[in-house]
Amino acid sequence: MKHWLLAAALLAAGLGCMGDAVAQPAVQEQVDLDMTARIRQEAFQRSQVMALLDHLTDVIGPRLTNSPAMAKANQWARERFSEWGLANVHDEAVEDLGRGWQFTHADVQMLSPRAMPLHALPKAWTPGTPGAIEGEAVQAKLESDADLAQWRGKLRGKIVFLDEARPYKPGDKPDFQRYSAAELEELLTFPMPRARKPLLVMAPRINQFLSDEGVLATVSISSRDDGIVRVMGGGSRKAGEAVGVPALVMAAEHYNTVVRALQRKEPVRLRLDVDSRFLDDSNQPGYNTIAELPGSGPHRNEVVMLGAHLDSWHAGAGANDNGAGVAVMMEAMRILKAVGARPDRTIRVALWTGEEQGLLGSKAYVARHFARFEEPDDPQQRALPPFMRQQRGKLIKLPGYDKISAYFNLDNGSGRIRGIYAQENLAAAPIFAEWLKPWHDVGATIVTQRNTGSTDHISFDAVGIPGFQFVQDQLDYFSHVHHTELDVQDHAVADDLKQAAAIVAAFAYHAAMRPQPIPRKPMPDAR
Amino acid sequence: MKHWLLAAALLAAGLGCMGDAVAQPAVQEQVDLDMTARIRQEAFQRSQVMALLDHLTDVIGPRLTNSPAMAKANQWARERFSEWGLANVHDEAVEDLGRGWQFTHADVQMLSPRAMPLHALPKAWTPGTPGAIEGEAVQAKLESDADLAQWRGKLRGKIVFLDEARPYKPGDKPDFQRYSAAELEELLTFPMPRARKPLLVMAPRINQFLSDEGVLATVSISSRDDGIVRVMGGGSRKAGEAVGVPALVMAAEHYNTVVRALQRKEPVRLRLDVDSRFLDDSNQPGYNTIAELPGSGPHRNEVVMLGAHLDSWHAGAGANDNGAGVAVMMEAMRILKAVGARPDRTIRVALWTGEEQGLLGSKAYVARHFARFEEPDDPQQRALPPFMRQQRGKLIKLPGYDKISAYFNLDNGSGRIRGIYAQENLAAAPIFAEWLKPWHDVGATIVTQRNTGSTDHISFDAVGIPGFQFVQDQLDYFSHVHHTELDVQDHAVADDLKQAAAIVAAFAYHAAMRPQPIPRKPMPDAR
Repeated sequence: MKHWLLAAALLAAGLGCMGDAVAQPAVQEQVDLDMTARIRQEAFQRSQVMALLDHLTDVIGPRLTNSPAMAKANQWARERFSEWGLANVHDEAVEDLGRGWQFTHADVQMLSPRAMPLHALPKAWTPGTPGAIEGEAVQAKLESDADLAQWRGKLRGKIVFLDEARPYKPGDKPDFQRYSAAELEELLTFPMPRARKPLLVMAPRINQFLSDEGVLATVSISSRDDGIVRVMGGGSRKAGEAVGVPALVMAAEHYNTVVRALQRKEPVRLRLDVDSRFLDDSNQPGYNTIAELPGSGPHRNEVVMLGAHLDSWHAGAGANDNGAGVAVMMEAMRILKAVGARPDRTIRVALWTGEEQGLLGSKAYVARHFARFEEPDDPQQRALPPFMRQQRGKLIKLPGYDKISAYFNLDNGSGRIRGIYAQENLAAAPIFAEWLKPWHDVGATIVTQRNTGSTDHISFDAVGIPGFQFVQDQLDYFSHVHHTELDVQDHAVADDLKQAAAIVAAFAYHAAMRPQPIPRKPMPDAR
Repeated sequence: MKHWLLAAALLAAGLGCMGDAVAQPAVQEQVDLDMTARIRQEAFQRSQVMALLDHLTDVIGPRLTNSPAMAKANQWARERFSEWGLANVHDEAVEDLGRGWQFTHADVQMLSPRAMPLHALPKAWTPGTPGAIEGEAVQAKLESDADLAQWRGKLRGKIVFLDEARPYKPGDKPDFQRYSAAELEELLTFPMPRARKPLLVMAPRINQFLSDEGVLATVSISSRDDGIVRVMGGGSRKAGEAVGVPALVMAAEHYNTVVRALQRKEPVRLRLDVDSRFLDDSNQPGYNTIAELPGSGPHRNEVVMLGAHLDSWHAGAGANDNGAGVAVMMEAMRILKAVGARPDRTIRVALWTGEEQGLLGSKAYVARHFARFEEPDDPQQRALPPFMRQQRGKLIKLPGYDKISAYFNLDNGSGRIRGIYAQENLAAAPIFAEWLKPWHDVGATIVTQRNTGSTDHISFDAVGIPGFQFVQDQLDYFSHVHHTELDVQDHAVADDLKQAAAIVAAFAYHAAMRPQPIPRKPMPDAR
């Protein structure tokens, strides 16, 4: 394995040759350099990728699953796809995604011991306040049943600060991180897999407790420093479930200021005015947007898929997570159409909904078209959201299962592509290594066997369909923008998105043209 | 000069000796290592510096000149000084500092083209809004009389965005910067002085224009990225002067979002609710807080001064600018008292007001006790705030002028002391080099002849009194906290402040004990 990996590294770096130490593809992998050159020209010189990102993030804004903005984004994507002449443009429903929710503003002030504005934003799917409300802050950990028992009867009318203060930790790296040659080499090594801990789902019980006890609101500390608010969901998107009380995430520095005052035994009085609201009374479907460049060769009834998630969190504008991926995938389709590509297999793009809630859009799509697992026997496992389950049933393959060659995903911010995660698909790696060769000069060089997760290629990979995510430069994705209010267009890098769109277009094209589909790896055990 | 500097560098690095190439002090500079050891122990093992900073910034909060919090800080500092047994503890009035102002909150929302909260804070000494107001955003540059003429009659009821959008520029260094050996060496070289540009003061005319034209509010872009709001003053603190209209500084990412919408010709409607207010109808005095450790030797009627400014801007808590300096100077006095120092000269500490408005507290103090310049003849120069003047009158020396040995200042954040700026006082440098030797092991090594400005030692330096500011590690002072909402206790570094307090105490003690006062440099030309 190690030997093979080293050979792959050499290949990836453009230094190796298909020597006899490497399992060799039956036929030398073909790269269409004329088409590659056309793609590069269209992508680099007539790019639309920033215009796409601009509209998606600045005009439409953040696109929480089942929010009105998400519906606008579905419509806008369909319009673009149709305008470009793609086929089979449509939305496909994902049932029971829950309720729509949106917020317009959150105003939080400390009234005493001294007046100051506090920077905080609401968690998605939590209720707003009935206008401005005032209450006293209390610090209380509410994570276990024992915690709930301890605090029962003591929190009525209080604003509960749920976390400890956290000392400031300055960033020890420059804001924008790009992979160095050494870091890319490190990425080529494969770490042994680790067992995952089962998760205990306390949220519904805590939400019920908060409502029952008459808690006024909760406040959590942002997981980022420097005043950056990182906020995802709370409450519940599901009709009928307890949504708890208004729940805010506060900038760490402000959170710490409040907690220090509480630790000094100073009474802290706050005023909150949070305008957030649920938009539906019942669970609604969400929508994946689909479009195709139809195949016209002998494998025209087979498909190569591209995708990225159209939904986002609500605090920023979903520019890097995942407006960038959406703009790149749309641009890749536009490029293929613009250069007159006539692929053998059909190239299909999917812009997913519900990714942030557990890859829900792509999971539903895969279950409907390709394969799904039977529900697990264990009722405890069945009660968990599918992505948290450790046990699953038998794989049911649908007729489409053998007709999909591969799925390519982009969802790690706006950083340029540096290679691809082969997800332990050893036979796919030499193919990708060949395809990457014309892109070495724009920084895309490596094929790593590492598994990367947390995004929609996992929905395919989980049922044994070759699903891949590209290796991307991190930039300030994890330090600043991931799920934060800073996830806006300003932090996206145009040149990197142009590069990514070109490479994605070329990968899609070559996957659609090669005589065989992408080889499949053995089905992994349950994970 | 260059030769001398190199020798000083060697000295500072602890490698040199007082060779014959260097102008040698008449007597070898004495360093009291027993007292130095006592100071170190008190400073490092029984430090109070973070407790002082905590109270000043967390309990009292930001201390805008002439605000109620500034008065609280004066009182608190007097109480601490008295509690420690210092002498002559009092506040000294600085006349006509203007009006008090404070704000409690600012709530800014975009209503259309889409609803989103916008992060913005008011400039000090600008009016609030009468509750929530709504208006349309317009982008207009209002910097010159020509700009005002162009926009006259077109801005009634508008919210004026004054700046261009600014592309995001990621930080290219880690958050916390400390001087490397190479950077310290670079600091030992002396750059040739440059002429300063005269400034045109447009602010009063612009404020009048904004009121006359019925502008609803103005918005400027924060000079920092990553959502950080950096905000100083606007309007006018002086009674009777035009204060203009509510003026906000907005996070760059949000500012850019609005400007991009305007550039797409989308009407942008905002709601503002800014609770800020003036607290006085007439100009009020502010106060410097003074305390002394009286001298008991033959030079007891001479004085060595320490100082830092107690006032701050209003958005953060003034922790690094300049709570850190205040806590260090207070702690240095506490240490000297605690170790039983009985200095020959009197050691006096001053906590200044009005530094952020142009070193007003320290200038007034120097003018009252030591020396001042006659008003300039040129009426245009006379109209400028003193710190902007290029011409000045004759120096009038008061009796105290010959009784002050030196003034030491700390005002570059919470970073540890790495040396001292000798301000081209060539004769002082070898003295400081000796004093620094016991502090090499905690990183304080260099004496540079560079002039550093923008803080209260300049009030002394300007009239020919030896006034010095220490070289400090920058940390995240300029990248994150300087004049921003992030200037809170979390971003201060306890160990660095302990080190600084020890060194300041030792410098004060040695300045108070040496047989001669610190040598003076020739009076510089007007600057």
